Amino acid sequence: MAITNKIENFRMEVNPAFLAKAEALAPALIETEIRPAGTVELVPQGEDFAARPLERGFVRSRPLGRGDGLCLDFGDHWVGYVSFTLTPVGSPPDAPALLRLRFGEIPYEAAAGLSDYQGEVSRSWIQEELIHVDVLPAQVRLPRRYAFRYLAITVLDTSPKYQVVVEDVSCRAVSSGDRSAVPPLKTGDPELVRLDRVSLKTMEDCMQLVFEDGPKRDRRLWIGDLRLQALTNYVTFRNNGLVKRCLYLFAALTQNEGRVGACLFMEPRPQVDDTALFDFSLFFVSCLHDYYEASGDRETLAELFPTACRQLELALRELDGRGVVTDRDTWWCFLDWGDGLNKQAGAQAVLIYTLKQGAAMAERLGDGERAALWNERAGALSRAALEHLWDGELGFFVSGAGRQVSWASQVWFALAGVFGREENVRLLERLIGQKPGIPLATPYAYHHLIAALMENGLTERAVSIMKDYWGGMLREGADTFWELYDPSDRFASPYGSRAVNSFCHAWSSTPAYFIRKYLDR
Amino acid sequence: MAITNKIENFRMEVNPAFLAKAEALAPALIETEIRPAGTVELVPQGEDFAARPLERGFVRSRPLGRGDGLCLDFGDHWVGYVSFTLTPVGSPPDAPALLRLRFGEIPYEAAAGLSDYQGEVSRSWIQEELIHVDVLPAQVRLPRRYAFRYLAITVLDTSPKYQVVVEDVSCRAVSSGDRSAVPPLKTGDPELVRLDRVSLKTMEDCMQLVFEDGPKRDRRLWIGDLRLQALTNYVTFRNNGLVKRCLYLFAALTQNEGRVGACLFMEPRPQVDDTALFDFSLFFVSCLHDYYEASGDRETLAELFPTACRQLELALRELDGRGVVTDRDTWWCFLDWGDGLNKQAGAQAVLIYTLKQGAAMAERLGDGERAALWNERAGALSRAALEHLWDGELGFFVSGAGRQVSWASQVWFALAGVFGREENVRLLERLIGQKPGIPLATPYAYHHLIAALMENGLTERAVSIMKDYWGGMLREGADTFWELYDPSDRFASPYGSRAVNSFCHAWSSTPAYFIRKYLDR
Repeated sequence: MAITNKIENFRMEVNPAFLAKAEALAPALIETEIRPAGTVELVPQGEDFAARPLERGFVRSRPLGRGDGLCLDFGDHWVGYVSFTLTPVGSPPDAPALLRLRFGEIPYEAAAGLSDYQGEVSRSWIQEELIHVDVLPAQVRLPRRYAFRYLAITVLDTSPKYQVVVEDVSCRAVSSGDRSAVPPLKTGDPELVRLDRVSLKTMEDCMQLVFEDGPKRDRRLWIGDLRLQALTNYVTFRNNGLVKRCLYLFAALTQNEGRVGACLFMEPRPQVDDTALFDFSLFFVSCLHDYYEASGDRETLAELFPTACRQLELALRELDGRGVVTDRDTWWCFLDWGDGLNKQAGAQAVLIYTLKQGAAMAERLGDGERAALWNERAGALSRAALEHLWDGELGFFVSGAGRQVSWASQVWFALAGVFGREENVRLLERLIGQKPGIPLATPYAYHHLIAALMENGLTERAVSIMKDYWGGMLREGADTFWELYDPSDRFASPYGSRAVNSFCHAWSSTPAYFIRKYLDR
Repeated sequence: MAITNKIENFRMEVNPAFLAKAEALAPALIETEIRPAGTVELVPQGEDFAARPLERGFVRSRPLGRGDGLCLDFGDHWVGYVSFTLTPVGSPPDAPALLRLRFGEIPYEAAAGLSDYQGEVSRSWIQEELIHVDVLPAQVRLPRRYAFRYLAITVLDTSPKYQVVVEDVSCRAVSSGDRSAVPPLKTGDPELVRLDRVSLKTMEDCMQLVFEDGPKRDRRLWIGDLRLQALTNYVTFRNNGLVKRCLYLFAALTQNEGRVGACLFMEPRPQVDDTALFDFSLFFVSCLHDYYEASGDRETLAELFPTACRQLELALRELDGRGVVTDRDTWWCFLDWGDGLNKQAGAQAVLIYTLKQGAAMAERLGDGERAALWNERAGALSRAALEHLWDGELGFFVSGAGRQVSWASQVWFALAGVFGREENVRLLERLIGQKPGIPLATPYAYHHLIAALMENGLTERAVSIMKDYWGGMLREGADTFWELYDPSDRFASPYGSRAVNSFCHAWSSTPAYFIRKYLDR
C-alpha cells in the first residue's frame, strides 16, 4: 500500500519492554538456493509483454558483447539475493563490463525499465540496476534483495576485445515461512488446490522478518495486511510467533496518544510511520482477537489488551452527535482502493465489528465491566447506523453527505453483524444481484466479500466468486497473488503505472484461509 | 591508450622470480582525505559545459527530492574513493532513494552522461552510477575508484513523503607519489612554475600500484607511457622502486618468444595484454637504460639486460633486405595518434635509438662484444635509413611506400642521432619552419619534439613550444595534463567521444622533466 496521509505533530511513543519482546521473537530466515529454470524471450503483446520459453535449464550464456542480453526465468516467484559469475572470453578485459539488470515479478517489468516509468510512486521501486564489473572474471553478488521470477541481463558494453559469459546464476531465496509446517490439503478440487498453492507461495514470499505487505514494494508491516496474513497463517504456516512479534511491534511503537499506526518500518530501526488510518488502528483489536482465538495465548492477550482498548477509545472520539463516525475529506480510512469511495459507512461498520471483538476479549479476560461497555457501544453504533446510514427504500447502507452506495459499505455492515443472518443474506444477495454503486477494487476488499458470504452460509456463492476473481489472476499467469486485480483492466494501478504494482501481495493470499477454514473438511 | 591490435596465438611467458621481485616492490598508497571545495553550476557553452562557481565550501545540501541535484567541485583533480551521508528529511522514508552520480575530470563529463555517449571505446569507462539506498540515513561508501574533480549528484527519486540531504562528502584520495620527495623548484618563471605544478599533479594521480597511463581510462601499465613517467619521476617524486617494480613486471610477464608486451593488467592478477607494438617492446631497452642512468642499480641492469637484448633481437628480424624496418598495414607501431601516420621511418629511428642504448648498457656491464654488435647494427640501420628513407631534395625523412613526410619521423631521427648535431638542428628548424606533412597529435609526440630540441641545444624554441602547447591546456582550465590536446579542436578524440578521453594522463606530464632537467638551474 502507498498512502500519503500523515498525522500532524507526529511523534513516536515507545514501550521498550514490548519492543524487547518483539525483538526476541525475530525469526530465523529459511534459505533455499534456486537456479534458473531456463531462459525466455520477452515478446511484446500490445501494451504488455509475454515470456516465451526458449531453453529449459540454464548453465551458461553464449558470449555477450555490447547490446547483447538474455532473460532468465527462475520458474516461480522468489524473494532473495542473486549472484552470478561473469567470465571474460577473448583478450584480457581492457575495460570494465557494464551491465543492466532488470528483475521482474512479471515479464512486463523485466522488459520495460526505469526510463519507461511515468508513475507517481517512487521510481526507486523499479528493480533495475546498472553495474560496473571492474575486474574479470568476477563473482557478482548483488547486495539488494529482489522479488522476482524473471531477470533480464543486458550487456551495455564490454570492449571490442572481449565478451562475457554469464554462468553460475543463483538466487538465495529467503522466507520465515516453513512449508513443512503447512497441513496437507484434503480437497481434490483442482481449482481449489491451485488457489491454495498460489496463496501459500504468496504468503511464503511475504513472510520475512515480519509479515511484509509485498516483498517488492513497499515491504512494510501494515496492520490491515497483517490481519489477513495472520488469519491465513493460522491455518497454513502456523507461525504464531511471527504474529505475536508483529503485535508487540505495533504495541511497542505507537503514534501520539498511543494510537497504533497504519504501518511500521523495520529499518534502520523499528519505527512507526506517520500514516494513521481509522480502520487500520482498529485492526489491532482484530489482530489481537484473532491471535488469541488461534493460539489461546492468554498472557499476550492480557498484556496487549490495553493497547486494543486504546484504539477503540480513540475511534469513539470521532463520533458526531448522532453516534455516526464523522466523515472527512482526507485519506483517513482505507477500506479499499478505488476511485471516489466514501469511507463513512465502512468506518462505522469496522468500529462496530471491532467493538464486538473488544468485548469478546474482555470476557475472555474476565473483565465483565469492559465487555458490557464495548457491547453497549456496539449496540448504540448499530442503532445509529440503522437510523442514519440505512436506506430502507434502496435496501442499502449509504455513506457520506452524498449518500453513496458502495459494495464496501454493504460488505462491512454484513461483517459487523448489524443485522441478523437472514437480513444479511438478503443484503448480500441484493448486492450481488443489483451490483449498485462503487464496486470492490482489490483482493483485500474481495476478501471481505468472501468472508461475509462464508459467514452467512452463502458458501457456493463465495466459492464461485473466489474461483472467478482469484482464478482470473491464475488465468493471467500469476505465480503469486497480486496487490491489485481488475478483471476488466489488467493494467489497472492506483500508482500511475503497474510497473510498481506488487505482484506478490499478502492481502491477496486468503483463498488458502477460506479453503482451509470453510471448505477443506 | 586504447589499441585493438592483438598478436596471433598469444600466450604469456612467466618468470616467477621476476614476478616475486615485482610483488615485493608493491608500494604503500598514501591516503589523503579531500572535502569538496564548493558547488558549481554546469553551464552549457556551445557543445561544452563550464563550471560556474556557486558556493565556496560545502557542508550539506538543501533537501533534495525527485529531479533535484547539485554538482560538487573538489577543487582539483583527485583519484580516490568517495563516501557521503544521505539523511532523510520529512516522514520516515517509505521508498528507497535512487541517485545518479556522475564523476567528471572536466565539467563536460559531469554534465553529459551514459545516455549521451556515442563513442567507440567502451561506455563502461563513463564514470556514472545509478545507486539505490534502501535504508536511510545511510553512509554511502562507493566501492569503485574514480578520477575526478566534479561530482554531479541527481536525486532521481525519493518519494512524496521525504527528501534527502547530502552531507559529509569526502574523497579518500590515493597515490604512491610522495609530494615531500619532490625537490623544490628554483625558477621564478610563473609559467614554468605552473607547468611544473600541473605536471606533478598529473604524475601524482597516475602513480598508483604501478605507473598507470591514466587513472580514469584505461589504468594500465603501458611501457611507452612508463618511459616518460620514469624520466619525470627521476627528477620529481624519485620513487625509483616503483620504476624497478614496473621493469620487473614487464620482464616477468612477456608474450610469445619473450616479447615485452605493450601493456600489463594488474587485476585480477598481473598479466600481459595480447597487444604488441614494435616501438613499445623496444622501449623496455630505453626504460632499463634510463633507470640505470638514474639509479646506478647495476644488479637490476644485469638481471634485466637479457630481456632488453631480446627486444632488439626480435625487432631486428623485421628488417627487409635493405636493412629497413618492413612496413605493415596493421596497428603495429604506435609513435603517435593521428590519422594516417605511416610508422616505418619512426620505427627505424626507434630501433636505432634503442640499439645505441643497448650498446651503452652492454658497455656498463663490461660486455664489449655485445656493445660492438649493437653499435654495428645501429650504424648499419642508420646508413640504410640515409640511403632509403632520407629524401635529400625535400630535406626530410620519408616513410612507407607513399614516401610520407611526418613530424614524427623527423623528430625520431633527430633523437636517434643519425645525423650530427648541426644537421639535426637544420632538420628541426626546417621542420618547424616548413610544417610539412602529418603533424604531431598528442602530448606524447610533442614530448619527443621538445626532447629533440632540448638535446640539440634549441632550448628557447623548446620552451616556447612547451609553453604554447601545454600552456594551452592550462588556458583551457586543465587541472592535470590531458591524454590528447589539439589546440585547433578542443573536442578531438581518437575514441569517437572526448567523454572517454583521459584528462589526467601521465605521458603528458613531462614539462616537469624538461623544466627540471634543462631549465631549472
